[in-house]
Amino acid sequence: MKVNAYAAGEAGSPLEPFEYELGALGDDQVDIEVEHCGICHSDLSMLNNEWGMTEYPFVPGHEVAGRIAGVGGRVSRLSVGDPVGLGWHAGYCMSCEQCLRGDHNMCATASSTIVGRHGGFADKVRADANAVFRLPDGLDMANAGPLLCGGITVFNPLVQFDICPTAHVGVHGIGGLGHLALKFARAWGCHVTALTSPGKMDEARQLGAHEVLNSRDPDSIAGAAVRFDLLLSTVNVAQDWDSLVATLRPRGRLHVLGAVLDPLEISVFPLLMQQRAVSGSPVGAPATIASMLEFAARHDIAPVAEHFPLSKVNEAMKRLRSGQARYRIILDRV
Amino acid sequence: MKVNAYAAGEAGSPLEPFEYELGALGDDQVDIEVEHCGICHSDLSMLNNEWGMTEYPFVPGHEVAGRIAGVGGRVSRLSVGDPVGLGWHAGYCMSCEQCLRGDHNMCATASSTIVGRHGGFADKVRADANAVFRLPDGLDMANAGPLLCGGITVFNPLVQFDICPTAHVGVHGIGGLGHLALKFARAWGCHVTALTSPGKMDEARQLGAHEVLNSRDPDSIAGAAVRFDLLLSTVNVAQDWDSLVATLRPRGRLHVLGAVLDPLEISVFPLLMQQRAVSGSPVGAPATIASMLEFAARHDIAPVAEHFPLSKVNEAMKRLRSGQARYRIILDRV
Repeated sequence: MKVNAYAAGEAGSPLEPFEYELGALGDDQVDIEVEHCGICHSDLSMLNNEWGMTEYPFVPGHEVAGRIAGVGGRVSRLSVGDPVGLGWHAGYCMSCEQCLRGDHNMCATASSTIVGRHGGFADKVRADANAVFRLPDGLDMANAGPLLCGGITVFNPLVQFDICPTAHVGVHGIGGLGHLALKFARAWGCHVTALTSPGKMDEARQLGAHEVLNSRDPDSIAGAAVRFDLLLSTVNVAQDWDSLVATLRPRGRLHVLGAVLDPLEISVFPLLMQQRAVSGSPVGAPATIASMLEFAARHDIAPVAEHFPLSKVNEAMKRLRSGQARYRIILDRV
Repeated sequence: MKVNAYAAGEAGSPLEPFEYELGALGDDQVDIEVEHCGICHSDLSMLNNEWGMTEYPFVPGHEVAGRIAGVGGRVSRLSVGDPVGLGWHAGYCMSCEQCLRGDHNMCATASSTIVGRHGGFADKVRADANAVFRLPDGLDMANAGPLLCGGITVFNPLVQFDICPTAHVGVHGIGGLGHLALKFARAWGCHVTALTSPGKMDEARQLGAHEVLNSRDPDSIAGAAVRFDLLLSTVNVAQDWDSLVATLRPRGRLHVLGAVLDPLEISVFPLLMQQRAVSGSPVGAPATIASMLEFAARHDIAPVAEHFPLSKVNEAMKRLRSGQARYRIILDRV
């Protein structure tokens, strides 16, 4: 089967039409007819080979929404025509310790949708059925894609750390991930504070924040001492991490979700004296993705997105690079 | 009431006999006739004013074992003659949020036995009854003192993080805290690995380690990749923290208990990809101290200690400074 995709030939180059052939469908695989595909910042990092693991020609795209176009012989959970989503992972080994205990997102040999294989900037994409999720009734397919990567990344910590609806949650950095974090934490029942730049403070309130702090103003951060049970940081550049740790209540957690390349610098005493933690996590496991989708449908949670036709993918990438997108970009085939 | 103590007149000076007067006993307080007092590294840090909060004359000592010599009017839980222990905290406000939820050890206004008041290098010491713990039958009073600070510090994380007896626990640094951590983690049912210097490897096995790694050998640490669910670090100097994080399994935790003055440097991706955490905690709350003492008595857990008479306190401090003590020093009055 022929796939019509957009690929970069080398690091940083524009995306050009690219055709490739898919072989026979595996018994545990499905093919998805792509209808929409979100653009995640990691598509850009991969396109630029910032993490040293990109293979070219490189087809980005791992926030796919579409319909099942074909199912392998052993797939019973999905049928042709089903509305589905596909995220960062395109399959799991299903037999390692992590997979066996439900932590497939930490499977050491999980395949990633855009690592060593071709992603969703295309008319079709193939994946293991276990990594493909039926979209619940009521979830708008046009805006569902970003839930599968950005959305699950910020939803997962609420599940992993048993965050109570009584908790005070801070969201640091209001972009693709952060704006979804505000929506999820608000729907979770928590008190929600956005830490963002002055230009986004009003919008952060509209997105669900009860309170907003100017993240560029050290006095504003210092004034929020001992306030958060959970602070989700979605930025991907170095910060004054100690000033963020200081906003944590006793037992509080600074949870880093951005791919920050510089090491964190964290003073020990503020961790020690208040039993605080600094941690991170990757996307989410299948059971968590399924419950995230159900929760999003029930609470009408969708990304705020700018839409571009797939044919204008390079304009969309330019818009992503500008850092101005509010708040996610989605490519549409239909 | 007169107290005969040993005090330092200024930072770093020798301890000299020092007499002070205690006023009327408060209704919620008790007086303890000191029989034994452990020496913790923080007694030395405080004596040297390394944390900038020492008041002189300074009487060290916060690992007290002795007997109740007097009880205030509202104290019903303890009686004169009871064998008791007193640790880092000498009282809690009992009304802040932390105290009300059982986290008295994080009470912002808790009083510390040796901060702004006189400690246990003395014939008597006074404390709030809520910070004084009856020693269970079967616990040897002569060696109980170090359980009240070093012991609870390493026991507390096992409770706080619901460590399962199936867990693999590493203990980094085998000194006053670390050797007790080996004993507690072994009795907890865990697989226990010591990370220590070559000279202590055999002893670490005798103390309860199933396996021992040479902490000075980077290859040895690298060979322990993805091994520990919990790694308790008891050292108080900067380390190659990333090499320790690499020994953590998915969901693993590096828990820092040493008063390390240099900031931790921690790379983000190893936290992010495997949902790892870095954290710290201070001693323990009263309910945890009581259950630690019961657990220690049931499992016959006591520090390995060198004993000095209280009158030879300066020799004992010299021995502590040498770093050669195996593994705790206890001053004896009786």
